[in-house]
Amino acid sequence: MANRKILVAQGGGPTAVINQSLVGVVLQARRQLSAGVVYGARHGVRGIVDEDFVDLSQETTHNLDAVAATPGSALGSTRDKPDLKYCQDIFKVMAAHDIGHFFYIGGNDSSDTVRIVSEQAQAAGYPLRCVHIPKTIDNDLVGNDHTPGFPSAARFVAQAFTGATLDNNALPGVYVGVVMGRHAGFLTAASALGRKFADDGPHLIYLPERDFDITRFLADVKAVYNRLGRCVIAVSEGIHDAAGQPILAQLMQGQGLERDAHGNLQLSGTGALADLLCAAIKAQLGIKRVRGDTFGYLQRSFLGCVSDVDASEAREVGERAVQFAFAPPARPGGQTGQDGSVAIRRVGEYAVDYVLQPLADVAGKTRTMEDHFISASGHDVTVDFQRYLAPLLGTGLPQAQRLRAQAVPKVLGLGRGV
Amino acid sequence: MANRKILVAQGGGPTAVINQSLVGVVLQARRQLSAGVVYGARHGVRGIVDEDFVDLSQETTHNLDAVAATPGSALGSTRDKPDLKYCQDIFKVMAAHDIGHFFYIGGNDSSDTVRIVSEQAQAAGYPLRCVHIPKTIDNDLVGNDHTPGFPSAARFVAQAFTGATLDNNALPGVYVGVVMGRHAGFLTAASALGRKFADDGPHLIYLPERDFDITRFLADVKAVYNRLGRCVIAVSEGIHDAAGQPILAQLMQGQGLERDAHGNLQLSGTGALADLLCAAIKAQLGIKRVRGDTFGYLQRSFLGCVSDVDASEAREVGERAVQFAFAPPARPGGQTGQDGSVAIRRVGEYAVDYVLQPLADVAGKTRTMEDHFISASGHDVTVDFQRYLAPLLGTGLPQAQRLRAQAVPKVLGLGRGV
Repeated sequence: MANRKILVAQGGGPTAVINQSLVGVVLQARRQLSAGVVYGARHGVRGIVDEDFVDLSQETTHNLDAVAATPGSALGSTRDKPDLKYCQDIFKVMAAHDIGHFFYIGGNDSSDTVRIVSEQAQAAGYPLRCVHIPKTIDNDLVGNDHTPGFPSAARFVAQAFTGATLDNNALPGVYVGVVMGRHAGFLTAASALGRKFADDGPHLIYLPERDFDITRFLADVKAVYNRLGRCVIAVSEGIHDAAGQPILAQLMQGQGLERDAHGNLQLSGTGALADLLCAAIKAQLGIKRVRGDTFGYLQRSFLGCVSDVDASEAREVGERAVQFAFAPPARPGGQTGQDGSVAIRRVGEYAVDYVLQPLADVAGKTRTMEDHFISASGHDVTVDFQRYLAPLLGTGLPQAQRLRAQAVPKVLGLGRGV
Repeated sequence: MANRKILVAQGGGPTAVINQSLVGVVLQARRQLSAGVVYGARHGVRGIVDEDFVDLSQETTHNLDAVAATPGSALGSTRDKPDLKYCQDIFKVMAAHDIGHFFYIGGNDSSDTVRIVSEQAQAAGYPLRCVHIPKTIDNDLVGNDHTPGFPSAARFVAQAFTGATLDNNALPGVYVGVVMGRHAGFLTAASALGRKFADDGPHLIYLPERDFDITRFLADVKAVYNRLGRCVIAVSEGIHDAAGQPILAQLMQGQGLERDAHGNLQLSGTGALADLLCAAIKAQLGIKRVRGDTFGYLQRSFLGCVSDVDASEAREVGERAVQFAFAPPARPGGQTGQDGSVAIRRVGEYAVDYVLQPLADVAGKTRTMEDHFISASGHDVTVDFQRYLAPLLGTGLPQAQRLRAQAVPKVLGLGRGV
């Protein structure tokens, strides 16, 4: 299979480091297969059936390194979920172009795509090596300590909450920041890493792993506000009631909910959830200054907020995918490489190694936050979680500092009160 | 007056570099007045009437430097607008603490506060040197080439739009990003500096300096979308119709509009404007993937996105304020220093100098974007504006890069179409 072409593509939501993995595949393939040709499909599997290929062998290494450091999916992405007919078209195109190796960089849904393509290729007798390369800011792929893309997004969220807390200290009130994460609260939980001093926000963190109750929420906010005169809150876009219905869906009932090809309700791209929660706080707690932000696409696409640990690992999963695909046979006459999904395992404090998981172990499954990461109150994270996340955020995190200045005794005491 | 105390405070919205100006005042006062005492008032003028002072003479230089590099208002801020009674309380407190010099770091509204305090002090015969130090992400202070805080916020907006464009390239559709700026569109216009390639977004930029018409807006979006298959749009939160009514106010009519003590309608802290525009695009243009983000407080408080040019200038306006306040008399027997507002003037490409403007020239006035900065279409900026802003963004801007890879000729041409 060594002379057949290599095809790489990107699926699902872009991240700050997904291009590192793309470039990892391309450069490793060039190293390992001196005469090998590497194609990229534009916009994921959609680009395969459309025969929309670019020849990545015709890229300078300089440009590849520059693209690696650029957020977004350089090849373009897709939310398409192939059915059997779609897969048959994929094989026709791959055969026509003599493609023997397929690398797909993506999250949950993309891993399921790779599983389907791999199974259909075997059923059709088409010789194809399929490797899924992990990527998702949601950190919800099973069998991974964490997933490339998550640490950089987590860094953005932590830095954003440090700043939001400083802003809220200056002009006190209630601040609600809504963070991405459909089923997994990892990214929302990362807000906790923005804290430094004991009274820093976020003071409350609401995760999709716990049922959300608006009455309890308001009581929590009131308690913090009464104690500190301010309150900073991190909320996952995926929060839902005890029946599992998203709070956002409750709000937008009858207003045309949007779903993607994988059946997922569209949660991002609207500020409605933050606005709903702010309105409830204003109306029911009588607090005047209540502000809501929805971090939206900034948290996954902002240019210039990258964890160097994340960037390195994202590059390595791409390189290791090629190594796994072309691994020498375990025994004489055995097959070269195998299909699977590259996974990150933590092997030290802090060090990682990479393994190849069976595709069926990952595809379509969703990891959520483990119980020991969530505090008993249900609206905060544990020290375990902070220890888990801290090394992933990378080096050179900007630091916030406060005045320590001593209070001056009052002379008049005319005070109007604040 | 040299031995009387110095008082410094911060008003209005925090910025990424407002603490540079605070520290500039404190360190310059220490240099210039070896035995001088510098008080800080907590939460602006509110902290004066409340006698809520901290002794900034009791701060280490190390901590001051760390605070300078931290966003937010380290002393706390306020939106209070003092009336006569309030000013009389201010003088009582200042007299009780022997305060002879008042430095107030803030924007439009804060400069008006300094003007009132200065005038009332003169009327009351209270010897007080009042200097306003400029700060605002809106860049709307008259008599300034630009204002500290704006360049860092502009850098955030530019980097955010580069990222949003990359994201939109990967998963095409329409993206609407709403940027702060009540009357002045400078910050929204900064989105244009996120472009690199000819078809990069933002493709449309809507500023409060031009009337907004939803019908024309939809036609503009349709034209770009038909040409590129995607469209990235920057919109100022302050856009308004031909009658001057904010588009946001039209949307939220009867839903409890909030105004501050200065009579300003609260525009930030809600995602409603982006959601309205997205809904209109979906409904009337039939485009499926339409996403809206409201940059909100991230653009003024995010930890870790600072223009080094901005940081240096913010430090300098603080230092120069003290120098202006204690300037030797112009003639023998004349007064030491004078009241005024420090302003930044551009004197080279790129170099600045600082002058002291009369308070009445700045206070309560609003600069908006000059006509030569806005394109004839009304929905873009000119090259003049890009040349104006580029040097302010500072060094080390992260760069986006694209694949240049050549397209592979189709073999089958089965394409399903995109």
